[in-house]
Amino acid sequence: MKSDLDRLMAERNLDAIVVEGPDGLESANPDYNYFVGGRHIPGLVIKKRGEPAMLLHGPWEQNEAEQTGLALVSLNRWNMRDILQEFPDRLEARVEHRRRIFAELGVRGRVGIYGTVKAGPFFALMARLAQRLDGLEIVAELDRDLISMARLTKDSDEIERMRVVGRKTCEVVQAVIDFIKAGRAKGDMVVGVDGRPLTIGDVRQVIGRELAARGLEAPAGTIFAQGRDAGLPHARGDDEMPLRLGQAIVFDIFPREAGGGYYHDMTRTFAIGYAPPELQQAYDEVLGAFNMVTAEFEAGAPTRVYQDMVCAYFEARGHDTIGRTYPIEEGYIHSLGHGLGLEIHEDLSFSSLVDRGDTIAPGSVFSVEPGLYYPDRGFGVRLEDTYYCTPDGRFESLTPFPMELVIPLNVER
Amino acid sequence: MKSDLDRLMAERNLDAIVVEGPDGLESANPDYNYFVGGRHIPGLVIKKRGEPAMLLHGPWEQNEAEQTGLALVSLNRWNMRDILQEFPDRLEARVEHRRRIFAELGVRGRVGIYGTVKAGPFFALMARLAQRLDGLEIVAELDRDLISMARLTKDSDEIERMRVVGRKTCEVVQAVIDFIKAGRAKGDMVVGVDGRPLTIGDVRQVIGRELAARGLEAPAGTIFAQGRDAGLPHARGDDEMPLRLGQAIVFDIFPREAGGGYYHDMTRTFAIGYAPPELQQAYDEVLGAFNMVTAEFEAGAPTRVYQDMVCAYFEARGHDTIGRTYPIEEGYIHSLGHGLGLEIHEDLSFSSLVDRGDTIAPGSVFSVEPGLYYPDRGFGVRLEDTYYCTPDGRFESLTPFPMELVIPLNVER
Repeated sequence: MKSDLDRLMAERNLDAIVVEGPDGLESANPDYNYFVGGRHIPGLVIKKRGEPAMLLHGPWEQNEAEQTGLALVSLNRWNMRDILQEFPDRLEARVEHRRRIFAELGVRGRVGIYGTVKAGPFFALMARLAQRLDGLEIVAELDRDLISMARLTKDSDEIERMRVVGRKTCEVVQAVIDFIKAGRAKGDMVVGVDGRPLTIGDVRQVIGRELAARGLEAPAGTIFAQGRDAGLPHARGDDEMPLRLGQAIVFDIFPREAGGGYYHDMTRTFAIGYAPPELQQAYDEVLGAFNMVTAEFEAGAPTRVYQDMVCAYFEARGHDTIGRTYPIEEGYIHSLGHGLGLEIHEDLSFSSLVDRGDTIAPGSVFSVEPGLYYPDRGFGVRLEDTYYCTPDGRFESLTPFPMELVIPLNVER
Repeated sequence: MKSDLDRLMAERNLDAIVVEGPDGLESANPDYNYFVGGRHIPGLVIKKRGEPAMLLHGPWEQNEAEQTGLALVSLNRWNMRDILQEFPDRLEARVEHRRRIFAELGVRGRVGIYGTVKAGPFFALMARLAQRLDGLEIVAELDRDLISMARLTKDSDEIERMRVVGRKTCEVVQAVIDFIKAGRAKGDMVVGVDGRPLTIGDVRQVIGRELAARGLEAPAGTIFAQGRDAGLPHARGDDEMPLRLGQAIVFDIFPREAGGGYYHDMTRTFAIGYAPPELQQAYDEVLGAFNMVTAEFEAGAPTRVYQDMVCAYFEARGHDTIGRTYPIEEGYIHSLGHGLGLEIHEDLSFSSLVDRGDTIAPGSVFSVEPGLYYPDRGFGVRLEDTYYCTPDGRFESLTPFPMELVIPLNVER
């Protein structure tokens, strides 16, 4: 939570943090949006330890800046035209501009850097700045960084927003089921009212419309993958492909509030009309893993324990897992989940690949998504809810939606 | 154009370029999208001078990667689990991972860095890598960098896509005009069929729906600003505000192909019902400036000339301009335009603030947007088309839409 920032700065011995908010990256800059609430305000946030965060913004964004509740500093205070006359080299001018900002605002010592940036200009500026400024130590954190760790635990406002996104996402999934159910079986395909076979592209149109109607967007797309594609965790699904009866369909939807807000992440696996025994068995095993692991969750426990638990569960049922084979392409081949919030993948990891000592922190939100993948046998199964660990250590699914494999269908006569 | 990359690398004496494509930044990573075509493929692009670009991708994205037409290298080739066993420090492991990639692919010498990244992890990796690797010189360009300069000139496929986005954007503007025209004047407001006053929020819903129906998105929002807000160039407009007769409305719409494609940028200024004389005069002057400057365009000419021309034009008519006052908040207060393509602001600048020697390059696409701003007098005017300078030096507006101030309205009886 934001209220953790000073404690986290003290733990890292940071005197100040700078969160870059360059123009053009709005919704892809979650660190910055954490402070400016998704508003379009190019600039930067500076916070010194023990002091309120300041937003340095252009004069044109005064109105939007006032809505953030941050302490405001107009960038007009540093006249770029004057600086450019004194420092004709554009990089030197940028360095001088930043030097003056840091000097006047008292930014010195160990300074952490955050936000989304363009690689070249940022590296050029920071490398030169570090050379030029005595008493400035730029601290670049690889992962589990200060702002990620603040964002890891959500406050009650954030949780309420995430609950709403969860409910809306479930509504979209229900709308897709209703759309499919309104069709009729014809041979091994599903036909619509006009008698034409429904395709994945048709489903995707429904998804897009239903998301937009609820103020949601899916910047990284949506997975609606059938058959072999369902066995490839990141295959998006082929729009040309007709829906077919008895095929595994992995429907993984991860939208966010439009304009750079909070995400939800849920997956259901479906079979239209009926499920072949092999698919039903894999489904039951994934559902078993899901129920087993969520029943075992304890606040503060290491995430690794649950990844290992799921690997053991699947291995006992004859599946290979990432716990014993790497790289791996069949069986249980990924990690159990990940943190989410302003990003779809946030800094809480269940990975067994790198054990960073992550725990299920009270106040955190994360996905739980066991799966089995057999592309060469033409199917895959994944089931996923978004979970919230409350501050007092209870667990709440933010995905109030049943897990049922078969979507029943009427037969065309 | 992409075909310029080797020439541009030679000019900069670059042996290789690396374009970072981290997960989660998809549509906000135009440098990377320039290579992968907006597909969701976390990874990186490496191109050595004189050789084809390589895409290093995860094994799960094999299918999408194949569609890029790039030379493919699976990241499975470097086993991160093994590296982590040898280098338990996670930063050292990342450095070693990148070192092995560079060594095996022969990346050495002067290496340019591009793409959108997270500030902390990127700086940490690059600073350590530069220390560790003998024979590696990291080249960070501030602006007018190699990829920006390749992207500056569009090939025929890119132009055709930008023409289509331009036509669709005009359709959206027309739909908004039609929506307003379907209302009736009642007092100084506009009421809809249900007798309730239309608001800017109502207009914004139309814009959202019409954009989505055409496969467009507006990640940085849309400006629909009335009255005083029209005089503040970046005010988005207040959704609660009812549309009022005789007020200046600046409608600046800059959507792109959904999922991170090409942008369009156009602005019209409207007055519903009638225009007060002061607004009409400012409008005529901005239109005069627009027509004057576009008639004078010459391929290869310095952009600064046109910025100066527009300043002189407005100054001769009694307006203050950024050409003689800085900072400035009334009159002509910004630059004449900017390049656009995969970003709304690209590296072709008409700015009079920093003269970088930019010229109107044949093959480039840029906005032309003179304006006058008088927030304290309750209005502002801006008119903007997107222009294309053809390879043979002609100029084409990609915004086939008239410039007419008044939207006529029926009076309710």
